Amino acid sequence: MDFIYTLDIIGTFAFAISGALVAAEKEFDLFGVLIIAFATAVGGGMMRDVLIDAHPINWIGDLNYIWTILIAVVFTFLFKSKIIHLSKTMFLFDTIGIGVFTLLGVQKGLNYDLHPFIAVVMGMVSAVMGGVIRDVLTNQVPLIFKKEIYASACLAGGFVYLICNYLNAAELVQFSLTMLTIISFRLIAVKFHLELPKIKDDLFSK
Amino acid sequence: MDFIYTLDIIGTFAFAISGALVAAEKEFDLFGVLIIAFATAVGGGMMRDVLIDAHPINWIGDLNYIWTILIAVVFTFLFKSKIIHLSKTMFLFDTIGIGVFTLLGVQKGLNYDLHPFIAVVMGMVSAVMGGVIRDVLTNQVPLIFKKEIYASACLAGGFVYLICNYLNAAELVQFSLTMLTIISFRLIAVKFHLELPKIKDDLFSK
Amino acid sequence: MDFIYTLDIIGTFAFAISGALVAAEKEFDLFGVLIIAFATAVGGGMMRDVLIDAHPINWIGDLNYIWTILIAVVFTFLFKSKIIHLSKTMFLFDTIGIGVFTLLGVQKGLNYDLHPFIAVVMGMVSAVMGGVIRDVLTNQVPLIFKKEIYASACLAGGFVYLICNYLNAAELVQFSLTMLTIISFRLIAVKFHLELPKIKDDLFSK
Repeated sequence: MDFIYTLDIIGTFAFAISGALVAAEKEFDLFGVLIIAFATAVGGGMMRDVLIDAHPINWIGDLNYIWTILIAVVFTFLFKSKIIHLSKTMFLFDTIGIGVFTLLGVQKGLNYDLHPFIAVVMGMVSAVMGGVIRDVLTNQVPLIFKKEIYASACLAGGFVYLICNYLNAAELVQFSLTMLTIISFRLIAVKFHLELPKIKDDLFSK
Repeated sequence: MDFIYTLDIIGTFAFAISGALVAAEKEFDLFGVLIIAFATAVGGGMMRDVLIDAHPINWIGDLNYIWTILIAVVFTFLFKSKIIHLSKTMFLFDTIGIGVFTLLGVQKGLNYDLHPFIAVVMGMVSAVMGGVIRDVLTNQVPLIFKKEIYASACLAGGFVYLICNYLNAAELVQFSLTMLTIISFRLIAVKFHLELPKIKDDLFSK
Repeated sequence: MDFIYTLDIIGTFAFAISGALVAAEKEFDLFGVLIIAFATAVGGGMMRDVLIDAHPINWIGDLNYIWTILIAVVFTFLFKSKIIHLSKTMFLFDTIGIGVFTLLGVQKGLNYDLHPFIAVVMGMVSAVMGGVIRDVLTNQVPLIFKKEIYASACLAGGFVYLICNYLNAAELVQFSLTMLTIISFRLIAVKFHLELPKIKDDLFSK
């Protein structure tokens, strides 16, 4: 479905910009910025493909990812301070990216005959691990482990996809409901500052 | 051998709890705790399987790992302060985990026709790399590179297994001797505060 | 070509020593030093082989890598303070290593029928990622993202190799031109303190 492919490229673009911005903040040189943009944008799908033995892996099998990332880095280089002011647009793109990456990850997992539950995990890996690799490479504790609720959004979206798939819903319906779940989940979480609980003490200690 | 499988699950459980405790200490949210518990418990075996091309990799081929980890995280959530006081029990479980993971790693390496020496390395990878991934994800210098002697215990156990295997010892004998080596090695090291030497200056400098 | 294999081993030796020195500086114990030396020396090729599904991966298929690394660590242990004074020799060995690793990476990529551009990326991965893994494991921001220009040298060398290959140049010519490009690129960069630009502000902001 060409529409999904387009969204995949948009998501890659948004993720690459978010990586490039983090790297620029850390005073990395152009090469460092490129690598971080690259890792952020294709790291999740790359990890998924290595884990499920899907070769050629994402960016090796389709050069469009690399071109998209190169364009995103040049774009960041040209318009850095403008992009920072476009935080709402970026947030939207980023959320679209998360949604599509989850969707494609679950889909690929099912195509490789994984257990549906593992397929959902693969959706999450695709959407989340790029950011984790970015944070490890820039020597930070991964943001997603502390604050962002979007892993839960991916999980929810993944299960919606599974159910649609089980019910043999039309591809457009599967796609729309999954994306809708992930995007609304994340918007609501950010709007109301929802966070996952932390383990401070156990339930039975006073 | 069902007995070994049971110990494998116990080891997974202990590793998952140790990961969950580190993550809780760092104030990770529930998702972060889950991922760190997961990485600690199955990270070593996952790395081994990716490196030797053994697909499906451990947690993809057997859902029991994921269930065990989920239960371990819930358990930590419920009983955190109790668990901390059970440090001796946890240490025992953890040591069992290290022993079984080493044993299974060497075994799998030999089954994949690796050179015996590489098979021992794979045993060590299985037992050690989960903790390394945990420490990288929580932005710490891996503990095992500085203090713990347990990598050496794995190495020793791995070679004992090789010898038993070479001598065609019964499976129970192979198993017992390997586990005994690893466990006693580690207990003695901890008891007497044994450490590996460090390279401060070279031998010939004054 | 046996000559290239010899240089590969020399490069492995130099990379292992550089890893061992970093780990010794951080007060790692002998095991930690070994792992860091190992990761530095074979990490790049290992990542390349996992990504392109080339099994058995480098150090599993050829035990000479492990022996070389062991010797390098013993060597560092014996002569640490001497080595530090040999910084020019080490720099030369290191540069040879970078050159050969790039060359072998591109070659392997082409042998696996990758797109020539991806093959060049694989050359860079082989030469650069060992150092990145070393820095992640020692909890530092990878040096190469901030200062060193050698990734660009690898890229340039990789493209020279591609052109030679396309023109069906003799193996010796391909080899010499690629190495010459990488080595002179790096020497010139270090001599004149060349650095890649950073993204501080965008081009159009005042």
